[in-house]
Parts: sequence; C-alpha cells; structure tokens
Amino acid sequence: MAKTYKIAVIPGDGIGKEVTPWAQQALEKAAQGEAEFTYEHFDLGAERYLRDGAILPEDEEERIKTNDAILLGAVGDPRIKAGILERGLLLKLRFDLDQFVNLRPSKLYKGVTSPLANPGDIDFVVVREGTEGLYCGAGGAVRRDTPHEVATEVSINTAYGVERVVRYAFQLAMKRRKHVTLVHKKNVLVNAGDMWQRLVEKVAAEYPEVTHDYQHIDAATIFLVSDPSRFDVILTDNLFGDILTDEAGAVVGGVGYSASGCINATNEFPSMFEPIHGSAPDIAGQNKANPTAAILSAAMLLRHLGFDEAAAKIDAAVEADIEELGSTQRSTDEVGRDILARIA
Amino acid sequence: MAKTYKIAVIPGDGIGKEVTPWAQQALEKAAQGEAEFTYEHFDLGAERYLRDGAILPEDEEERIKTNDAILLGAVGDPRIKAGILERGLLLKLRFDLDQFVNLRPSKLYKGVTSPLANPGDIDFVVVREGTEGLYCGAGGAVRRDTPHEVATEVSINTAYGVERVVRYAFQLAMKRRKHVTLVHKKNVLVNAGDMWQRLVEKVAAEYPEVTHDYQHIDAATIFLVSDPSRFDVILTDNLFGDILTDEAGAVVGGVGYSASGCINATNEFPSMFEPIHGSAPDIAGQNKANPTAAILSAAMLLRHLGFDEAAAKIDAAVEADIEELGSTQRSTDEVGRDILARIA
Ligand SMILES: CC(C)[C@H](C(=O)O)[C@@H](O)C(=O)O
Ligand SMILES: CC(C)[C@H](C(=O)O)[C@@H](O)C(=O)O
Repeated sequence: MAKTYKIAVIPGDGIGKEVTPWAQQALEKAAQGEAEFTYEHFDLGAERYLRDGAILPEDEEERIKTNDAILLGAVGDPRIKAGILERGLLLKLRFDLDQFVNLRPSKLYKGVTSPLANPGDIDFVVVREGTEGLYCGAGGAVRRDTPHEVATEVSINTAYGVERVVRYAFQLAMKRRKHVTLVHKKNVLVNAGDMWQRLVEKVAAEYPEVTHDYQHIDAATIFLVSDPSRFDVILTDNLFGDILTDEAGAVVGGVGYSASGCINATNEFPSMFEPIHGSAPDIAGQNKANPTAAILSAAMLLRHLGFDEAAAKIDAAVEADIEELGSTQRSTDEVGRDILARIA
Repeated sequence: MAKTYKIAVIPGDGIGKEVTPWAQQALEKAAQGEAEFTYEHFDLGAERYLRDGAILPEDEEERIKTNDAILLGAVGDPRIKAGILERGLLLKLRFDLDQFVNLRPSKLYKGVTSPLANPGDIDFVVVREGTEGLYCGAGGAVRRDTPHEVATEVSINTAYGVERVVRYAFQLAMKRRKHVTLVHKKNVLVNAGDMWQRLVEKVAAEYPEVTHDYQHIDAATIFLVSDPSRFDVILTDNLFGDILTDEAGAVVGGVGYSASGCINATNEFPSMFEPIHGSAPDIAGQNKANPTAAILSAAMLLRHLGFDEAAAKIDAAVEADIEELGSTQRSTDEVGRDILARIA
C-alpha cells in the first residue's frame, strides 16, 4: 500500500503561486501507486506581510515542522524593504530547520541555448552550506546615519557545520563522477578558508576514490564561463554558493531551469524544495512563468524521500519536453500540461 | 622641460618579471617629451620570501612610499601557503597606502573572442572598494583542529570609507555614460548593505545627471553573462569586486587583457598599477606570457599622473594591436615590440 506523506506548501508571491500547483501535480503523477501526498497550505510571503504584518508566526512554523517536506514557490515583493522576508521567512526556515545542505544542480539541457558560444557538456551540482557563514545575521551598526557609522557583518563557521556538509559532498560525488572542487577564498579569508580546507582533507581521506581540488571564488567564476564542464561537485560556503549558483543558472540558459533543495540530511526536520528563480512580479498573474524549475524541485523532493525512480520519471519528462519544445513560446499551463503528459 | 617621476617597480614572481619591463617601456615611449621616469626596483614576492623570509620589510615599504607611483607585476607561488604573500604584501600595500579605489575596466576589444555567443558592446569599469570589508583581516579561530573549532571573518565597513569610494564612482560616471550600478547583497548583509545604499542615495543627489540602480551580487553575476553591455560603472565592496572583476575578465576574453589600479585618490600615498592576472608559474620563464595587461596598467598609471594623452596613446596602440594580431600566437617579446611600435 502506498505510504502517505504530508507536504507543507508555501506558494509565496508572484509567479510562485502559479508554478507551485504544477510541482504538486508532477509529484502525484510520478509517485502514483508508490506514495500519496496530503498538503497543508501556508499563506506566507509578501502579501500576508502587507496584510497583517506576519512573516513566520511561531505556531505556523511549528506546524510546518510536522510535515515530511516543504514545497516553496518564491518569496519577495519590491514594496517590501530588502531583507525583511529574506531573513524573516526564507533564511529563518533554512536555519531553524537546520537545512545545512543547499543542493543546486546545474545541467545544460538539450534544446536550451546557453549564452556561451561553446558551453560543452555541463552537468554539475553545487553543495552550498546553508546554515552558517555570512548568513547568520551576526553583525551590527553603530552611529547609524552619521559620518562615523560603522557596519559589520560576521561570517561564523564551525567545524561541526562544515564537516557535515563536506561529508555530504563526498558522498554525493561517489554517486556521480567522483570529483569535488572546494571553492573558497582562503588566501584572504584565512581563518574560515583554512578550516574548510583542513576538513576537506580529513573527509577526503575516507573517500580514496574521490579526487578533489580547490579554487578561489574569483577563479571559479572564470571557469564557470570558460570551462564549466570541468565541474562535478562544487562544495562551498553559504555566500559563495549563492553567487556561483546564480552564475551557473545563467550559464545553463537561465535560472528558469534550476531547482534547489534546502536539505536537512539527518531528517530531524523537513527539507524544503524550491525553484531558484524569484517571484518575478513583472510577469506575475499572466500565465507566462515557466513551471519547469518548480517541477524539477518536485523531483528533488521525491529523491529526498527515497523515490528515486519517480524522481527520474520527472527528470526524464522535463528533459524530453525541453529538447522537443524548449524553444517554443508556451504559457505556464501549457508547459505544465506538456510535462505532465510525459510523466510515464 | 619634462618633469621626472619616481616609479617603484615590483616585478614579483613568475610572469610578473617578464611583463613588467614592457610596461616600463610603454610608459616611457608614450610620455616622451612630457615626463621622464626613474625606477626603484623592489625585490619582493615569493622568491625573496623563500630566500630570506622577508615579505615587506618596514624600511622597504617606507621607500616605496617615497615614489610617485608603483608598477606591480604579479605575486604568488604554489610553494607558499595561501594568504601569506597576499596578506603580507599585496593587501598590506593596498591598506597601508590607503588605496581605497580598486579600478578595474573591462572592455571587449575587437579581435578578441569572448566566450559569450552574443557579447554585445562591453565597456564598463568596476569601482571596487580596496581598504575595508572582508579584507580587513578581522577574524579568528578558537579550538583550532578540534571538532569544536569556530572560525570567523568580519567585514568592517565605515561611512568614511564607503562614501569616498561612492563619490569616486559618481565622478567617474560623469566622464562616461553616466550610470552607476551598486552591487551588494543588502537582502542578507543588511547592516553593510543598508549603509552602502544610503550613501549611494546621498551622493547621487549631488550628481543629478547620473542615473543609478542596484543589483544583488548573485543577480549581477547573471547579467555579466546574459547582458554585460548594460553596465557602465559598477560600484561594489572589496569581496564582491574581486569576484565580479574576474568574471568580467573571463567575459571579455580572458584576464590577459585586464589591468587594475589600486588608487589612493587623495594622493597621500602612491597608487599601484598591475595586470589582473597572476604569476602563472606554469608558463613562467618561457617568453609566453601576454604583456598586454601589464602595458594597459602603464596607461592607467599615466592617466593617474595626469597624462591623459599619453595614456590614450597606449590604449590606442593596444586596441590596434589586438584588432590586427590578437588571434596570432606570439611570444611576450613579440607582443611587447608590436605594441611599442604602435605607440605614436
Ligand atoms: C533571497 C536570498 C536570501 C537567497 C539567498 O541569498 O540565499 C536567494 O538568493 C537564494 O539563492 O536562494
Ligand atoms: C591575490 C588576491 C589577494 C587578490 C584579491 O583578492 O584582491 C586578487 O584576487 C585580486 O583581485 O587582485
């Protein structure tokens, strides 16, 4: 008998609301007979905040935690000051739910035009640390709005937090082409960089089959443009991972094809799956947004729950859809229906 | 009568030694009749460090300060632990000499192949803050090499330090296409980001002709690939500037064509000019390195000293050389001679 999973759904703002239902439908169709899903919807994001000032009320966060996984659409609205929703909702969930692996695959699909003249065969995954670094919110300001203002931002990195994500990257590499590239800026950020490098050496010793190398973040942004096919697993911290995955999204033809998992690899709390793109207020409500990335995030969710075959069905459907129809103008619903029809 | 300027020359390591003499020759030829140069050579870099352990002795730094400008080749050697020369020499000079503007033009020359399929007309300048942010070396580690290790890196940002570089960017924009793009991550780094944004608004009010906008660093890395011609002046902090300029270098066909000025805009201390590329130990000593970026750094030096016409001569010679011969295989000396011959 099919087991039932409880999914918390946070469609969020703008196009998030339009693409998330397609992710749910893909989930159900791909897992038919194997798993069933019940949904609990959470009205969180810019509209809720503008309506009643709530960002992530404690009782709602507690209810989110009782679910097996989270599907998120997109959060954000230009009317709201930068940082409020990001730190109050998105990052708060990542941190409180200890989603220490931010997993972001980049793949150049057949049928997608890369902005690169000779992109080669791009297929890598960024393993971005999700609960430390400059994202801690540790920082402050004195003498604000005076000529003597000083503002700080503190990057906090722990051996506990780094080692677990390093280990995740090496485990993942074992299932792939067995190469890990650590990206940091250890020639300047010597304290954190040195710790990352030492922990990579330590864990690497446990995985003799996996080769590894190191690149400074500045050099890595060059290679993403000049030779992206060299990468298999990129392992990096929270801020560098944010930067590299957006550049990677551009290189594989746009963040519209990139999904992301915020993963609590110990399963103590639910993991969260989302497209990399934002809420895109300029095209919201017009049935224009491409639901592909959201549908790919459903595949990541299935893989996380252990349904590798069901996940592979979605991936294959997306791949075939893009190859055949990727360059045609279609509405959100058309793309959604086309992909759904291919999920065998 | 031609005025004489004292130039401190730090060829450094690897190909730095091969390209720097060409920068000196370009300097002399372009400024003939207008300015003369005397050189004081400083033996600093990896080889010196490996020989006698010295990185930047105090008396040598004091002598460097007595010069009118500094020409730097490249510093670095894989035998030396990351951070030692960077922080002890390169960053120490930038900080001690208060070189608060790190000026990095990116231009796609005719004759250079960009890795982008449709690069468009790329011609922008990154104004990178050079004396603050995560580069301060403020950070530390406790319980090193234990499972309880914590390592921090602190970004320090002051209104004093930010406002002066913001002002420089707007002044520069007035001489260009009159647009400034602030790049930061103000939705996460809310303390520093908010201060940068406020100071941009303040200074922008003094330059009504200059338009300005804002991009998060992650979005900026996308636009550098998808639409780089949109940029005129990019204004950003020390770390984001490091990252963006390397990506920009890749987009305009390789860091081999990118020069950089570490500028003390008040002239209290000498400014420093260098190619963006590193010491490239793999091709060092083989007469293979391209001296173009070093020669372009000589043009920046001339412009800084007020010799705009002489600088323009070098720029024009480089431009013509690349357009005609950019795709041919040439030795360091051949490229140097070819460019020199074109300096009218
Ligand atoms: C919205 C923002 C806080 C977030 C981040 O920086 O992590 C986003 O850019 C992402 O990459 O998911
Ligand atoms: C060598 C390193 C310290 C330096 C930096 O990060 O500033 C380099 O990457 C640069 O961009 O000049």
